[in-house]
Amino acid sequence: MMKKNISIIGASGYSGAELLKILLGHPSVAVSKVFANSSAGKRVDELYPRFRKSAVGHFVYEEYALEKVLHDDLIFIALPSGDAMNFVPDLVKAGKKVIDLGGDFRLKDPLLYTKYYKHEHKATDQLAQAIYGLPEWNKREISAAQLIANPGCYVTSALLPLVPLVKEELIEPHGITISSLSGVSGAGRSSNVDLSFTEANETVKAYKVGTHQHTPEIETVLHDFGGHKVTITFVPHLIPITRGIYSSIYCIPKGAITSEQIEAAYRKYYSNAPFVRLIADAVPEIKHVQYTNFIDIGWKVYERNNQIIFHSAIDNLVKGAAGQAVQNMNLMFGFEETTALL
Amino acid sequence: MMKKNISIIGASGYSGAELLKILLGHPSVAVSKVFANSSAGKRVDELYPRFRKSAVGHFVYEEYALEKVLHDDLIFIALPSGDAMNFVPDLVKAGKKVIDLGGDFRLKDPLLYTKYYKHEHKATDQLAQAIYGLPEWNKREISAAQLIANPGCYVTSALLPLVPLVKEELIEPHGITISSLSGVSGAGRSSNVDLSFTEANETVKAYKVGTHQHTPEIETVLHDFGGHKVTITFVPHLIPITRGIYSSIYCIPKGAITSEQIEAAYRKYYSNAPFVRLIADAVPEIKHVQYTNFIDIGWKVYERNNQIIFHSAIDNLVKGAAGQAVQNMNLMFGFEETTALL
Amino acid sequence: MMKKNISIIGASGYSGAELLKILLGHPSVAVSKVFANSSAGKRVDELYPRFRKSAVGHFVYEEYALEKVLHDDLIFIALPSGDAMNFVPDLVKAGKKVIDLGGDFRLKDPLLYTKYYKHEHKATDQLAQAIYGLPEWNKREISAAQLIANPGCYVTSALLPLVPLVKEELIEPHGITISSLSGVSGAGRSSNVDLSFTEANETVKAYKVGTHQHTPEIETVLHDFGGHKVTITFVPHLIPITRGIYSSIYCIPKGAITSEQIEAAYRKYYSNAPFVRLIADAVPEIKHVQYTNFIDIGWKVYERNNQIIFHSAIDNLVKGAAGQAVQNMNLMFGFEETTALL
Amino acid sequence: MMKKNISIIGASGYSGAELLKILLGHPSVAVSKVFANSSAGKRVDELYPRFRKSAVGHFVYEEYALEKVLHDDLIFIALPSGDAMNFVPDLVKAGKKVIDLGGDFRLKDPLLYTKYYKHEHKATDQLAQAIYGLPEWNKREISAAQLIANPGCYVTSALLPLVPLVKEELIEPHGITISSLSGVSGAGRSSNVDLSFTEANETVKAYKVGTHQHTPEIETVLHDFGGHKVTITFVPHLIPITRGIYSSIYCIPKGAITSEQIEAAYRKYYSNAPFVRLIADAVPEIKHVQYTNFIDIGWKVYERNNQIIFHSAIDNLVKGAAGQAVQNMNLMFGFEETTALL
Repeated sequence: MMKKNISIIGASGYSGAELLKILLGHPSVAVSKVFANSSAGKRVDELYPRFRKSAVGHFVYEEYALEKVLHDDLIFIALPSGDAMNFVPDLVKAGKKVIDLGGDFRLKDPLLYTKYYKHEHKATDQLAQAIYGLPEWNKREISAAQLIANPGCYVTSALLPLVPLVKEELIEPHGITISSLSGVSGAGRSSNVDLSFTEANETVKAYKVGTHQHTPEIETVLHDFGGHKVTITFVPHLIPITRGIYSSIYCIPKGAITSEQIEAAYRKYYSNAPFVRLIADAVPEIKHVQYTNFIDIGWKVYERNNQIIFHSAIDNLVKGAAGQAVQNMNLMFGFEETTALL
Repeated sequence: MMKKNISIIGASGYSGAELLKILLGHPSVAVSKVFANSSAGKRVDELYPRFRKSAVGHFVYEEYALEKVLHDDLIFIALPSGDAMNFVPDLVKAGKKVIDLGGDFRLKDPLLYTKYYKHEHKATDQLAQAIYGLPEWNKREISAAQLIANPGCYVTSALLPLVPLVKEELIEPHGITISSLSGVSGAGRSSNVDLSFTEANETVKAYKVGTHQHTPEIETVLHDFGGHKVTITFVPHLIPITRGIYSSIYCIPKGAITSEQIEAAYRKYYSNAPFVRLIADAVPEIKHVQYTNFIDIGWKVYERNNQIIFHSAIDNLVKGAAGQAVQNMNLMFGFEETTALL
Repeated sequence: MMKKNISIIGASGYSGAELLKILLGHPSVAVSKVFANSSAGKRVDELYPRFRKSAVGHFVYEEYALEKVLHDDLIFIALPSGDAMNFVPDLVKAGKKVIDLGGDFRLKDPLLYTKYYKHEHKATDQLAQAIYGLPEWNKREISAAQLIANPGCYVTSALLPLVPLVKEELIEPHGITISSLSGVSGAGRSSNVDLSFTEANETVKAYKVGTHQHTPEIETVLHDFGGHKVTITFVPHLIPITRGIYSSIYCIPKGAITSEQIEAAYRKYYSNAPFVRLIADAVPEIKHVQYTNFIDIGWKVYERNNQIIFHSAIDNLVKGAAGQAVQNMNLMFGFEETTALL
Repeated sequence: MMKKNISIIGASGYSGAELLKILLGHPSVAVSKVFANSSAGKRVDELYPRFRKSAVGHFVYEEYALEKVLHDDLIFIALPSGDAMNFVPDLVKAGKKVIDLGGDFRLKDPLLYTKYYKHEHKATDQLAQAIYGLPEWNKREISAAQLIANPGCYVTSALLPLVPLVKEELIEPHGITISSLSGVSGAGRSSNVDLSFTEANETVKAYKVGTHQHTPEIETVLHDFGGHKVTITFVPHLIPITRGIYSSIYCIPKGAITSEQIEAAYRKYYSNAPFVRLIADAVPEIKHVQYTNFIDIGWKVYERNNQIIFHSAIDNLVKGAAGQAVQNMNLMFGFEETTALL
């Protein structure tokens, strides 16, 4: 089989580098070009020496231009939110498949986008066209899609435990609280003083309390996939680890519920989901999913305070970004969903 | 002034060592003996070389016996729960002041104690006599007390933000969710594989979900000091830092509420509390309270989901253990409350 | 091709788990049994939940017995030093290929073994037979070997930079100083208080200064492969990272030398070594080799003080243990040397 | 006694903040002003919230001007190298006592300064006047000094073990190798990507191999205080801890030597040094000196390879910067040397 040609726009960030690493192990695709304006002219193994001696180590980051990708089959975009929308319209018109790892095409409502991302949306046509890339919930649409909005990292960790419960009406639509912890790589390759080792080590802080841009994404997708409108509180915290997201989720059950009923709901939707691991009353840990595309989900019915408590763990750069993007790509190309991901 | 003589039972653990460090800087007390059966015969600076050249470095841990403390004015007990109750009755009968840093005398109800601590209570008389040592709420009782139950670390981080709101009836008595993160030193000086560096580094896990022994302590004291019965969900998580506790607390307001009303409630009770720092809509961080006896409390009214969100940060070994114990001791001896703690 | 059957004795430690992970990706071998007396009866994914849903997750650790491996082609042993020698003689007599990841068969001289390992050697016949498994230096012997002594982690990081220089007589045979830093996983899956997170975090210590058992191994192999007798100082340090070894090596050049001469010596021996990356005057970092089987080697001629300074970095669990063991296995079975390792 | 008035130029960096913390506990000085051009207008507790509720929390960083410090008794300068020389001449002329924590006045030779610091020296008169502030070696000169060059952090960790041996001619003047490890705070409050948590965590790297500006400082002061010219190799490494420096030092003894002779040399010079802890064949650890002004020094005679191996540990921000500066200040004002430092 001819290999598919792939390019990455924004290849010098952590998600871009993780994409490169995963694609190196993929038997059916070949990386053709890596774009990164800020690092143009540098070799990949100069920025990421771990790629020394690998097939992409000698690649040189280039400035992006549409004509450079005309022979590619699919383009990944791993840019900060607000940038992808500048390139996506032309790529789509040129008939390219596109997977955007950023936030530009996740919210259907441009006003909601502007409210949380603090700038105008400039590609509303593609916004309507984009398919949300959560393979556990819309595999068929993804398979047929041209443009994929790859889910946010926190969002993935929250949606996979929540959607089945919303859909099955097992929880109340209000009072859902998502208290998430993220490793520092989630903030990207950054020179922010607050993210320096000395400042971020040996401490914890909540941030963007109730205002994080993943809040509307979680609510919107819960509505889309779960079929019911819900309201959530989402509080992200920064913790001193490099990789991983841990979400502790607190919900109010609709009437009496048992752990087995929850498990049944999960099995109904996830029995064929290769990357969802249901661990019932066990408790997930980030280390068990690090460097993998798995999500571990545990739960407990807590009658004393009329709650259900969920915990989920993912690797923010894999299931939370590059791994999920490759999972989507596999579906779009008709490859086995797990290729290069197990 | 004659210095007060102090001994510590269980002086070889982290809380005991922290007590020693704080007491070294106290002008009005002298450490007379350090007891630690498991380390009997070893020098303090052998276990804790940071005490080399200090006034207690050459002290030798001894096996505890009542007759060895008969000339002391106050005894700190820093033992695992279940041990202090073996020594406290005789100490109390001998007229000694006692501060127990463990959990043995915090719950008034011996059945509740047994339910959560998994063993019988053997000193129920002293249970009734013990005063809960949260100086921000019962300074007068502490000043007159003979036996103090020093609060749990998680409990301190949760109570100080919550009590004023319960007392002022600003929040609903149900649905209170406390999602706490603790550094590993909270587990004590331990040889548990799960707490080894390799296992505890670069990960996060929730544990004792809804069943932690601090759950009934938080509820009981909220009732005692707040005057209303409440139910909480308490989920502790272990994070890879050495010291510190971070609590994210989610409550339902009773009717409309503003951030200013919350601040007013706090100011009403904490305007003279030297170790409470109210930071309103700022977000606490563990690093700002590490190695101090402060608690930082921030809050946000989150109308979208009808919640109030609180964050608090303490150092688990200081305000969460040894520092608070010394604060209690200062009150019991009539010293300035902040002595050796600022 | 029929897959080779592999069992692991001591499969519950970190090297054993890393072996399992690598072998899962190997197309030509199948894991048949995992032995671990201390964990007998437990599932692999109970001890290492990261193996949930993998092909070995449901494997159950068994107590080892010779008859259980009679149908296997090769047995890895990943036990603490002193244990492998109890099993190896019978395995060798039974005609099995064996790779011992521990220290039992690395030193040819049983008296030297006893001096550094503090117990008698009980399998001196096999000691004579064992081939030292450093593929960059004795690929042919490894390919024909029945019993492999897999090199120590520190040793690998020191030998690969040093052997070419000794062999080419570019450095003096005395005054070689190896100052190495190791992540905590190097100490194994341990319940030692000194290796607890609280004790090992945010600190550094040297240990076994000049007395570490890897000292004679480095000297012996430098003699064997380099052809000259040398004396070294080896000082290991424990640093707060999970995985990785970093060696800073200081030597005295024999007469004037240039960086290019060193590079030439390296290229002479390593031009076909797939896992050696020569980075000249760049400086290695552990993060660039983590989770890989690579060793990065950099160097600098420091005329001011008549020294050559080398730095090398490896992942202690991969090139320093399980990865190198699989590299050896590949050679023993005639597979491509890099299979499952790139 | 009237308190001495102190100002700090460069008060917003880590050394400046540590100075503030130490001075808060000093009974005989008062902080009058804090200067920090880059943070001018911000409150101290805005940049460093740990100072909330402290006596300096509400201080506002100001732009520096000479007339603002005319009523001060002593000025600390904690600026990057190259900046202090702009302010020191006028301060000295105005009769102020000055302690410079940076590198501008440590090297007597302006050419050597330029070679390592890569810019011209603009205050050579004051260079000649400056006294090197290592209290263990020139207490008398410090007591009488107007301008102190506070030693570098690595330098302090290397000099205190080495000077007695050089002075007593116990080691050869060549072949001295200093392999040092530093926590990330040593790089200052920085927004460099390479010092971000994600990049600096879980790794190690050597840097400025043989070219670090502390190299000539170590050699110069060894000559000045030790009376003999020596040559050193100095290799600093960055490790993932916040605070601390660990130096492993390898020397060649002059003839046969015993551990006791080394101890005797140390006792000869350090028996009255309050912050030097000699631990002989024990091994220092950073955690035992963190947040203190102590240096721990251990040593071992290693006959096998004709070396003496030393290890020392300090807190880079205390004995390596602010603590040593206050120790110098105490001597300059005739205070007890240990005031505010124990």
